[in-house]
Amino acid sequence: MIVKNNLSPSKNQWRTIALEFERALGKGSVVRRKEELLTYECDGLAAYRQRPALVILPRSTEEVAEAVKLCDRYNLPWVARGSGTGLSGGALPIANGVLIVMAKMKRILEIDWENRQAIVQPGVINNWVTQAVSGAGFYYAPDPSSQIICSIGGNVAENSGGVHCLKYGVTTNHVLGLKIVTAEGSIVDIGGQVPEMPGYDLTGVFVGSEGTLGIATEITLKILKIPESICVLLADFATVEAAGVAVTDIIGTGVIPAGMEMMDNLSINAVEDVVATDCYPRDAGAILLVELDGLEVEVQGNIRRVAEICTQNGAREITTATDAETRLKLWKGRKAAFAAAGKMSPNYFVQDGVVPRTQLAKVLREIETLSERSGYQIANVFHAGDGNLHPLILYNGAEPGAFEEVEKVGEEILRLCVEAGGSLSGEHGIGADKNCYMPQMFNEMDLETMQYVREAFNPKGLANPGKLFPTPRACGERANWQQSAQVKGAKLF
Amino acid sequence: MIVKNNLSPSKNQWRTIALEFERALGKGSVVRRKEELLTYECDGLAAYRQRPALVILPRSTEEVAEAVKLCDRYNLPWVARGSGTGLSGGALPIANGVLIVMAKMKRILEIDWENRQAIVQPGVINNWVTQAVSGAGFYYAPDPSSQIICSIGGNVAENSGGVHCLKYGVTTNHVLGLKIVTAEGSIVDIGGQVPEMPGYDLTGVFVGSEGTLGIATEITLKILKIPESICVLLADFATVEAAGVAVTDIIGTGVIPAGMEMMDNLSINAVEDVVATDCYPRDAGAILLVELDGLEVEVQGNIRRVAEICTQNGAREITTATDAETRLKLWKGRKAAFAAAGKMSPNYFVQDGVVPRTQLAKVLREIETLSERSGYQIANVFHAGDGNLHPLILYNGAEPGAFEEVEKVGEEILRLCVEAGGSLSGEHGIGADKNCYMPQMFNEMDLETMQYVREAFNPKGLANPGKLFPTPRACGERANWQQSAQVKGAKLF
Repeated sequence: MIVKNNLSPSKNQWRTIALEFERALGKGSVVRRKEELLTYECDGLAAYRQRPALVILPRSTEEVAEAVKLCDRYNLPWVARGSGTGLSGGALPIANGVLIVMAKMKRILEIDWENRQAIVQPGVINNWVTQAVSGAGFYYAPDPSSQIICSIGGNVAENSGGVHCLKYGVTTNHVLGLKIVTAEGSIVDIGGQVPEMPGYDLTGVFVGSEGTLGIATEITLKILKIPESICVLLADFATVEAAGVAVTDIIGTGVIPAGMEMMDNLSINAVEDVVATDCYPRDAGAILLVELDGLEVEVQGNIRRVAEICTQNGAREITTATDAETRLKLWKGRKAAFAAAGKMSPNYFVQDGVVPRTQLAKVLREIETLSERSGYQIANVFHAGDGNLHPLILYNGAEPGAFEEVEKVGEEILRLCVEAGGSLSGEHGIGADKNCYMPQMFNEMDLETMQYVREAFNPKGLANPGKLFPTPRACGERANWQQSAQVKGAKLF
Repeated sequence: MIVKNNLSPSKNQWRTIALEFERALGKGSVVRRKEELLTYECDGLAAYRQRPALVILPRSTEEVAEAVKLCDRYNLPWVARGSGTGLSGGALPIANGVLIVMAKMKRILEIDWENRQAIVQPGVINNWVTQAVSGAGFYYAPDPSSQIICSIGGNVAENSGGVHCLKYGVTTNHVLGLKIVTAEGSIVDIGGQVPEMPGYDLTGVFVGSEGTLGIATEITLKILKIPESICVLLADFATVEAAGVAVTDIIGTGVIPAGMEMMDNLSINAVEDVVATDCYPRDAGAILLVELDGLEVEVQGNIRRVAEICTQNGAREITTATDAETRLKLWKGRKAAFAAAGKMSPNYFVQDGVVPRTQLAKVLREIETLSERSGYQIANVFHAGDGNLHPLILYNGAEPGAFEEVEKVGEEILRLCVEAGGSLSGEHGIGADKNCYMPQMFNEMDLETMQYVREAFNPKGLANPGKLFPTPRACGERANWQQSAQVKGAKLF
């Protein structure tokens, strides 16, 4: 059977193809029934949905290679999927394509205590790594808020961050090596157990490539020693600006907190309404949560400094906690912020953008103006230390046209970030959601160079087509902010 | 004029080509006279020499692009060169090729104090960056021992390290973005001023690519705040093994020293003979130099811990210093170690390999056995915290066959490193020196994948051919340790 390039298989042909996958991987590894396929039609970005033609559940590197080779043979576009918690539609299936789901590859293969590394399969849940090593005093640092459900494979694809990436960096800083299957089905080892191997840093390219270069089937992670001491400080400020200056001053002293999060008045009240932490003062313009970790003596010294700086910037009250229970209580509201937004308003839209830390106050003022102009409330919860904003735009999806308006507000926020010298995405990725905006950050030559690299791993373009990069069909001949809202869709192949 | 691919231009053709370069870049930018070309015939790996046909000295990104385009038009292989201090022959010219020297591009273009970044041209000397920002309390972290002469462009090519890379990482951890000229002469911006940009991490691929992907013409570097407090600790041990266990124990507590260096008895005595620090006890089996930095309170706490661990591991005497003068005195011997080796013996050969920290003691014992078996003394000076060995093999170049024997000892050391799960190179790069050994670390598929990436930037293979990767002509059809010593040479194109 020959399926020509760019011509989707017919219904009959799909039947034959499915049988071939079953022959190669076993019957239990192929999902074909419509109602079962429904589970896979979207990821965390539920606004876009597309049912795949076929779902494949490989159990080993070799089976992944088999599956990819079959896709290559029949020119079938395919998408890899971890837990499906991504927020930019990176795992959105392709119409008439194959979805390769890594859920069955969830073993921790090896823990090398001496060299502080763990080798895991891509379906392993982020939090399992920490659970597996915490008894011996270790943990895995990147902690996206979905960490109890998101997979390491998905973290690698999206280069996920988390609350602690200010001090510890994002996923790419914690991946030493990968076994990957390229889009042609070759099994390649990149990086390794020694940091800074000679040759090109292909591990760095692969992490964050959003499934466009292949599938990671084994991932070597760094594990870190649990810090001797952890302290959380909560300070409240009259205004977001004052809290912003405190952030800049803290970084200015040379102290690098493990995490530094800010919430504005709207978020504080939303959280208190919903989870009643009784820790966050409802009349504060903003609160700052600063986590410091390290050796006891170091944490004590740093916490004094941070407290001083907060006081100098007008903090009314400062609470600190070193015991696990109180620390958890202080963090509780921050962790519940997204859920609280969901209760505060029928719907919310969370944006993810980055601004240089020094531009925080300016961009926050602009977002406030935008909120007033558009009539939509915007709650700000964000990784202040990294300048990574997560504005939550509140709306009622039942009102006709509201979602489209809110999407435009979200775009406007991204534009503000990029204009301030920032980035389209801090940690949620580009995926199917923001690929049309890439030309705002990169010129044609920059994007073309990335395409050449893509072709090195994925010459036919079968791996996750239409994601990460703008495509003429998805974004119009020239992507721009106005057009892009209308033309996004799932028919990417 | 047409020069066919893989056919070197004739003498007459070179004359025409030189005139064309002069037309494009100005007469002062082209070096043609034989005696002037001599300056450029090798880099820090002086064992290999090759005079280039032409040296070009561009003054801007545009001139670099012009030069590269001319090379592309006439199919001329070319090599970029910074200060020429590299130790693996990465800047070794190609016979009948062009050498593009970045010495005229030595301006610091911008210092962005608020975002702690500096944009520099590739010819800027490493140490100039620190000099330019130290008045305001900042510094540039990567500090190769050649830092007063090596260029940032060369550091980018080789992903250079230094004494402080244990805590602060190597060059790739300090480069945020690059303006590059690809081998086809395109000007591309990769990375940027915001960390973790979306899209592929091409900055990571480019750093350490040893000139095989193009030329960086603008480099955005992170600058760091000078730590509040710095303390150096010197401890002496009866054996290298005891010092090695102390290293593992120190890292085990969670303390990350800014630098942690070890010297064995032979190195200690060489240094004391030559620079007479009077700090290093001549009867010690090994000394450990540990630098701790950070906030005052943190450094004080850490230094106590490190001292305790050293004592537990049998350190006889522990000296600490926080004042700049005494710190310098303690470091003086380590910094003079290579020079001292040169005085101790007519010649020395420095190897650069990495072992997992946990394998340090084992590999050091094997090196000792190798020294006894071969009859060549080997002094060990190394970045203990990273497991980055720099064995100095002492020999007399006047003895016939000595160099060849010593080269084999050096190869044997690399083999021990790789077999222990380590790497061919810690910080000196692969270049023309170790490319034949790459198949010891990477299989065919891994190397092929790197080649695909190389082709994305450098499709004709004109940029630094014959470096970094094994080539059949240079290494024989299948590279192996035995063959490679004989077949290395400069005729790589």
